[in-house]
Formats: sequence, C-alpha cells, structure tokens
Amino acid sequence: MMNNKIPEIGLWEMFEVTLEGPKRGNPFLEVELKAIFTHESGETLEIEGFYNDNGIYKIRFMPVKKGHWRYVTESNVEELDGQKGEFICVDLSPGNHGPVRVHNKYHFAYADGTPYIPFGTTLYAWIYQSPTLIKQTLDTLRKSPFNKVRMCIFPKYYAYNREEPVMYPFKGSISEGFDFTWFNVSFFEHLERQIENLMKMGIEADLILFHPYDRWGFSNMGFENDIRYLRYVVARLSAYRNVWWSLANEYDFLESKTLEDWDRYFQLIQEKDPYNHLRSIHCGITFYDYSKPWVTHASIQWQGSLRSWGGDNWGEKKVLEWRRRYGKPIIVDECGYEGDIEFGWGNLTSQEMVNRIWEGVTTGGYVTHGETYYREDEVLWWSKGGRLHGQSPERIAFLKKIIEEAPDYLEPIHVDWDVSCIGKEKDYYLIYFDVNRPRFRKLTLPEEGSYRIEVIDAWNMTVDVVGTFRGECKIELPGRSYMALRITRV
Amino acid sequence: MMNNKIPEIGLWEMFEVTLEGPKRGNPFLEVELKAIFTHESGETLEIEGFYNDNGIYKIRFMPVKKGHWRYVTESNVEELDGQKGEFICVDLSPGNHGPVRVHNKYHFAYADGTPYIPFGTTLYAWIYQSPTLIKQTLDTLRKSPFNKVRMCIFPKYYAYNREEPVMYPFKGSISEGFDFTWFNVSFFEHLERQIENLMKMGIEADLILFHPYDRWGFSNMGFENDIRYLRYVVARLSAYRNVWWSLANEYDFLESKTLEDWDRYFQLIQEKDPYNHLRSIHCGITFYDYSKPWVTHASIQWQGSLRSWGGDNWGEKKVLEWRRRYGKPIIVDECGYEGDIEFGWGNLTSQEMVNRIWEGVTTGGYVTHGETYYREDEVLWWSKGGRLHGQSPERIAFLKKIIEEAPDYLEPIHVDWDVSCIGKEKDYYLIYFDVNRPRFRKLTLPEEGSYRIEVIDAWNMTVDVVGTFRGECKIELPGRSYMALRITRV
Repeated sequence: MMNNKIPEIGLWEMFEVTLEGPKRGNPFLEVELKAIFTHESGETLEIEGFYNDNGIYKIRFMPVKKGHWRYVTESNVEELDGQKGEFICVDLSPGNHGPVRVHNKYHFAYADGTPYIPFGTTLYAWIYQSPTLIKQTLDTLRKSPFNKVRMCIFPKYYAYNREEPVMYPFKGSISEGFDFTWFNVSFFEHLERQIENLMKMGIEADLILFHPYDRWGFSNMGFENDIRYLRYVVARLSAYRNVWWSLANEYDFLESKTLEDWDRYFQLIQEKDPYNHLRSIHCGITFYDYSKPWVTHASIQWQGSLRSWGGDNWGEKKVLEWRRRYGKPIIVDECGYEGDIEFGWGNLTSQEMVNRIWEGVTTGGYVTHGETYYREDEVLWWSKGGRLHGQSPERIAFLKKIIEEAPDYLEPIHVDWDVSCIGKEKDYYLIYFDVNRPRFRKLTLPEEGSYRIEVIDAWNMTVDVVGTFRGECKIELPGRSYMALRITRV
Repeated sequence: MMNNKIPEIGLWEMFEVTLEGPKRGNPFLEVELKAIFTHESGETLEIEGFYNDNGIYKIRFMPVKKGHWRYVTESNVEELDGQKGEFICVDLSPGNHGPVRVHNKYHFAYADGTPYIPFGTTLYAWIYQSPTLIKQTLDTLRKSPFNKVRMCIFPKYYAYNREEPVMYPFKGSISEGFDFTWFNVSFFEHLERQIENLMKMGIEADLILFHPYDRWGFSNMGFENDIRYLRYVVARLSAYRNVWWSLANEYDFLESKTLEDWDRYFQLIQEKDPYNHLRSIHCGITFYDYSKPWVTHASIQWQGSLRSWGGDNWGEKKVLEWRRRYGKPIIVDECGYEGDIEFGWGNLTSQEMVNRIWEGVTTGGYVTHGETYYREDEVLWWSKGGRLHGQSPERIAFLKKIIEEAPDYLEPIHVDWDVSCIGKEKDYYLIYFDVNRPRFRKLTLPEEGSYRIEVIDAWNMTVDVVGTFRGECKIELPGRSYMALRITRV
C-alpha cells in the first residue's frame, strides 16, 4: 500500500475508475452505479457510472478544481459498492483550457478564461464513415479554421447518405430490430475516440443527441428509452471537456417528441451533467424558446440573409433581434451551405457563405459553416466529411484571424442602418458593408484620439491601410461588394 | 352658330374649356369655378376649374364614355358662371389605352382592358433640370423598358441635388419667401409638358405630391395651404390619363404632417379626382396602412432582399406577406438603387438591382428601378435624369419581355420554400432561384400534359430550351446564381 503513489490528473482532464461487476441479465438496466467525489475543500460531486460490457463498469470524472480528491462508489450491487480511491488534481496540461462556458452574456470563454470564438462546421455523420474517410476528415479539419463540429450520435438516413452504417449505438440490426436497452459499447468507444481526436485539435464536439433523419427507430424510442439513452451518454461523455450538448438537429421536425419532452430532456442533462456543458437545440422552422433557463445559447437555423430586418424594429438585424429576445450567445448553426446540390439549403455560392458568416459575426453572433458540393461518389462534407472543395474556409480563416487580433468580446455598435458593426466603443470598430458597394464613405470618428483605418476585402482577403484619421473623414473604397473597415485607435 | 361643328374628342383624351375672367385680387383664392359635364346617358361629373393667370381660367375634362357630352359652368363670378358647351367623345385614339386601374386585385390594367405591367424608374427632380438635360432624360426613357416614373412636383434639396431650381410651384423666391396662395402657372405648364412627353411614350407619371427634402417651406405649408395645393393640382392634372397620385415620398419623414393629415389628403383627392387615378403613398420606415379604403395599391420602400422572411409565416416572402396584409397590388417603389454612392440605399450592384426586381416580380409584386452612380458632375439618374450608366435596365427589359410573353396576371404559386414562382396553375410557371445555384433540380409536373422547360439566365439574358417533360423530371442547371425556369404547357 505504501508504495502506491497517488495518481496525478491535470485540471479538466479525465479520471476514470474501472470496476468489475456482474455480467448476468441486462446490467445496462439492472445495475445502478455512481461515485461521490470529494475535494479537499469539502466540495462534492455525484457522478454516474456506466456499464461497458463484459462485466466492466466505469466511472469517469473530470476534476473541476486542483487539489486532493477522494471518491467512494455506491451501487445496488455489492461488489461495486463502497469502492474507494483518490487522486491529486494538478495544473492544466498545455493546450487544455478547460470546457467552454458562456462569457460576457453573448460570448464564450474556456474555463481558464481564454476567449473561445466559435467558427464551427457541419459533419453530421462523419463518425459513421470508413476509417480512411474519417482520417481524411481529421486531416482536413487540422488544416481548417474550424473549432467546433456539429455531429450526430445517431446514424443519419438522408439524401447523399443512404448507406447502412457498419455499427449502431444499440444492439440489433435493421432486419431484426434494435434493443434500445442494450448499448453497443464498441460504437461508443469509437465515438469517444473521435471526440478525443477533435479535442487534440482544439475542436469542440457539438453532439447532436436526436435528429429526424432515421430509418432505425432511434428518433422514436419512447420517453423511457430516450431518458436511459441520455443518462448513458451523459455518464460516458461528460468527462470529455470539449463536449457540447445539442438536444437535436431540427427538433421541430421530430414529430414523436413534444415540447414538454424536450424541456424534460434538457432538465435531465442539466441535472446529470456535473460540469454544466453548453446546452442548446437546433431548430428547423419553429424556434425553440432559447430564453428557457436550461438553454445556454441559441442554436439557430436561418436560411436567408442575416442582414434581414423589418417590422417592429426597423434596421435591427436578425442577430440583434435574437440577442435582445434571448439574452444569450447566438450561434447561427445553419444558414445554408456552400455548394451546388439541388436543395435550397445546400447551394450557396462561396461568396454568400462567407457573406452570411460576416453578417452574423459583425452583428454580434457566430455562424457555422457547411459544404454540400455535388459529387459523383456522394461524399459531401456536411454529411460524411472527407475533403473540403469550397472557397469559403480560407476566407473564414481570414475572418477568424481578424477577430482574434481584435479586442476580446466585441459588441454590436450602431453606426448606420445600412452597415453592421462590432467593436469596443472609442477603441476599435469593424464595419461591414455586405453586398453594398460604396465608392467612398463619410465617417464621424471621436475628436479625441487618432484612428488607423484599414480597408478589408472579405472576399479577396486583403487589408489595406488607408491612413490615420480623427473626427469627420471620408474614406475611399473600391466600389465592390464584401468590403469592411477596421478602425483602430492608435 | 350653325356652322360651328361640335368638336370631337377621343375617349380618355383631354377636353379643355378656356374662359376669361377677373384678374384683380388673388383669383387663386377668391374665384370658385367648376363645370357640370353631362353625358347623353344622363351621367354627370363635376369638374373643378383653375386659374391660369392673366385673367384666364380653365376647366379640363377627360371623357370617360363615348357619346355626346354637354357642360355648364358654375362660379361665384358672374362672367364665369353659366358658360355652356358640348362635344362628342369618339373612339380611343391609337396608343391611348386610358388610365391605369387596379385589375384582378393584385394587378393593373388600362381602362380599355389592356394589361399594364409596371416597370418603373425613379426621377425625383428631373423636371427641374435644364432643357438639354430634360431632353436627354426623355431620349433615355424612350429607349428604356420603363413605363412608370416616380417624380416630385416640388423641387428637391438633398445630396447630389443642392442647386437652386430655376422655377418654383409658387410665386416668390428663396430670399423673399413664397406665397403659397399664388401658384406659378409657368411651372405647372412646364410640369404638364413633361407629363405629356411621358404620355406620348406610354409612361405613367407617378406624381409625388409632398416630400421631406425641402429648403423652401413646401413641406410645411400648413393644412389650409396643403389642401389648396392639392385641389389646384387635381384640377390641373386629373385630365391627364397617365397621372398617378403618390401622396408622398417617405411620408413618415415629414414631421409636419400627422397620419390624420395624410388620411384627409387622400380623402380630398379621392373626392376631387373624378377619374379615380391610382393613389398611394411611399414610406420611409413605417408602413402606411395600405389597407385603408382610399389607397389603391401599396408603394413600399424595402431596403433589403425581397426574399426575406421569418417569424409567424416561415417561408412567406415579403411580397406575399404584404399581399396578404393589404389585399392590393404591391409595388416596391424603392428597394435600393443600382450605383456606388456613399449611402446604403444607393450602392447596389447591378446584379442585386436585377435580383431584387426578379424577387419581387416572381412573388407577385412589382419593383421600381433607380440608379445612383457617382459622377463628378453630380448628374445622377435617380434625381436629375440624363443618361443611364448601369447594367440593370437591359436586364429589366429582358424580364419585361418574359412577363409580357407570359399569360396575363400571373399569380404566386407555392413550389418550394427556397424558390419563388409565379404562373397559371397547370399552364405556365416561372420559377426563380435567386442567389442560390443548384446544378440540377427535381420537379414534379402534372402527369397530364407536356411541358416545355427553358432555363433562363436572368443576368446573362439567355433562354435555353431543355426539352419537353411531364411528371417527375430532373432539370440540369448551370450552377450559377440568378437562374430561372420557364415551364410552359405545350
């Protein structure tokens, strides 16, 4: 006993307890297991364990505080009950900033305080592809600007994605049916490897828990099975710091679940996830009420210009309306995809994809990319991953760099009805002209202080210094669409 | 007396009675004059006369029915009272289709039943320019597709239009002030010549009666003077068949008038104009309630994509929303202008100008053009006229030809959320893809009947026959923006 060194775990890394227990019956259903983790300060967290098949049980814990932690298990099975252990939580490992949280009301930051600026992409069914294709997807992501991936846990049955998957989250088959009470541990281990792969690249895994594009019955398992599935997922995956919970893709197209169901699923996750990972739900047509207390941010589908406005608040761009309505970060997780397929949501020009992302970002929101170029082999990025073929990712990287170089947590600033602007009052302004193309623009800068003005071409990815100005000034512009001004106090 | 042949006047032409009367005092204020015109059928119309300076009084009448007409004057001045005359109203002259009316609820037709499809342009202050420039404007219009002109009666003081006009609608000057009770007849005669010049080209004069861009006080004359001005204008101009009444440009920016004022002005015109010329009012930000009974059609400003939607009726494009709300023809009289000046309403690309017009037309509305390219000489089409420099007019002519070739009075047809479509159910469909760019599209045509499908490139102005189809079909497209399909039953 004396020579057992207490293990050390970095803050926000995973500590895993493995126990042996019964194999008989259906342990997924019959065995209850949890552990109470107690910090040296007295703080405790209750963590659910899960069955990992073959008589193996696990409890995964992500320490939220440095210092000494002890745990003791509780179970309705004697051999799993009263098991104890301890570890020391040490400093953050390099590259680990902890999970992402809401910060400054409309923004995000990692737990260590580093700002997190979402530039997501869409890869609904990438984990269901061949090892070769999965590797290619990861290689593509590594070279991309993307730091969030929207991805489904369940397989997907939809246009350009009709192949039968090689594995399922449950025991069973398409011919014999599925046992929703028996999880396929191999599948979850595969999923976890992909979450880890994303984590290594600093990419958040925005996990979609339900979706309507189903031929296996996973979208319609009934309330009890849904709840069991959610508990199992939370028990297995919560200790991955880069996990986000997206209750659904297009929740309103899932006719088998009511609004009350969604609310209860949200509440269950909120109760069971001790780390309070980000929680939202993606809409098809009808917005979920993102002001509900269990929602951390809005995950919006809007198939149109984000510059649209009208009605009661003339000139108020969409993201501003949503910020006002929900008082939370706005992620437009779907605004159409760059591509050329037959569907209206999947044939944006590269220019329009980039434009909508600029529109969203310069009105105080975040916008997610997707790509759907037609391919004979039906490997479309948005569903299966592989390679990117479009011209937007390079431009998204350009925008990301601009935002990273700017002061943290830029807020919308009203400049004029026809432009969008984010900035820090008197210090920094990023003004976007959208499809409009003035040859020049008159500005009124604060009289005190000098401002360096740069003309940014969002499409051609150029930054040209115009000069230093104060007060009233007239800025020459090239008379093209997709231009911006960066105004920095010097 | 016996050798006096009864004059003959074509239907919807102008019959003018000229009388001599008093010059003393202020005849504009003091003399009342009207005539009762009686048709052989017994129908009567009461027509107000007006003072034309130098002791000359006029009564203008546009016969609304063929046959024998008599008139007798009434006045508070003896020498103008009880004057009589007669004429015969004969057939329509060639090229005269009569005034434009609302037809089929959301559309327009001339009084003779010929469809009128508005393709308007904007020329706010063209009548205030030099004779040379006015002639150039008329020459440009003659070669253009435009058949409606939005034009102000009052001079305009605004960016790119700061010159003092050479004449005013009232007696006076900028230094000495204006007498709002004394009309400048030379000005009105000039205005009438320009209305006639438009008439000869088949162009409707959409006369803007008030507007806010003023340095002479014409926007703030007070209720009594406003009423007198409106009566004078109606008396002088109603007998021009191509006149429309636009109560204001950006009525809501005219702070000196209340909504009640506007309602009363509408009612006055409705009462005084015996021909019931089209009546609307153009908005800045706040829409006028175009469902009010004295409004014939909506004249909307919308500075954005007409494809926008959202909220309660997802997928319902703006024009469809407005049709539903007002139950009248929708003319988007301002949606931004093709150009490159510093203002957001005046720097649309040619593509976006054409695109918005297609968006409006293929959702069952009508959209007005304007052009604001920066010029050193400050002669911008939208304000002063002159020459057109943009690329949209040619494309508007192309669209106009498509609509003229189509069945009359096309109605919106729901095809799918991402496209707009107008047509005649089972006979004709015009489907527009907007900025989206599918490589192909699957369609379900009626099983009975064959359909010729053509691919239209709205920007490159090409029409390519794809073939003849029925039922389920797949149409190849070039994967570019601004494409349409024309589907015609053969």
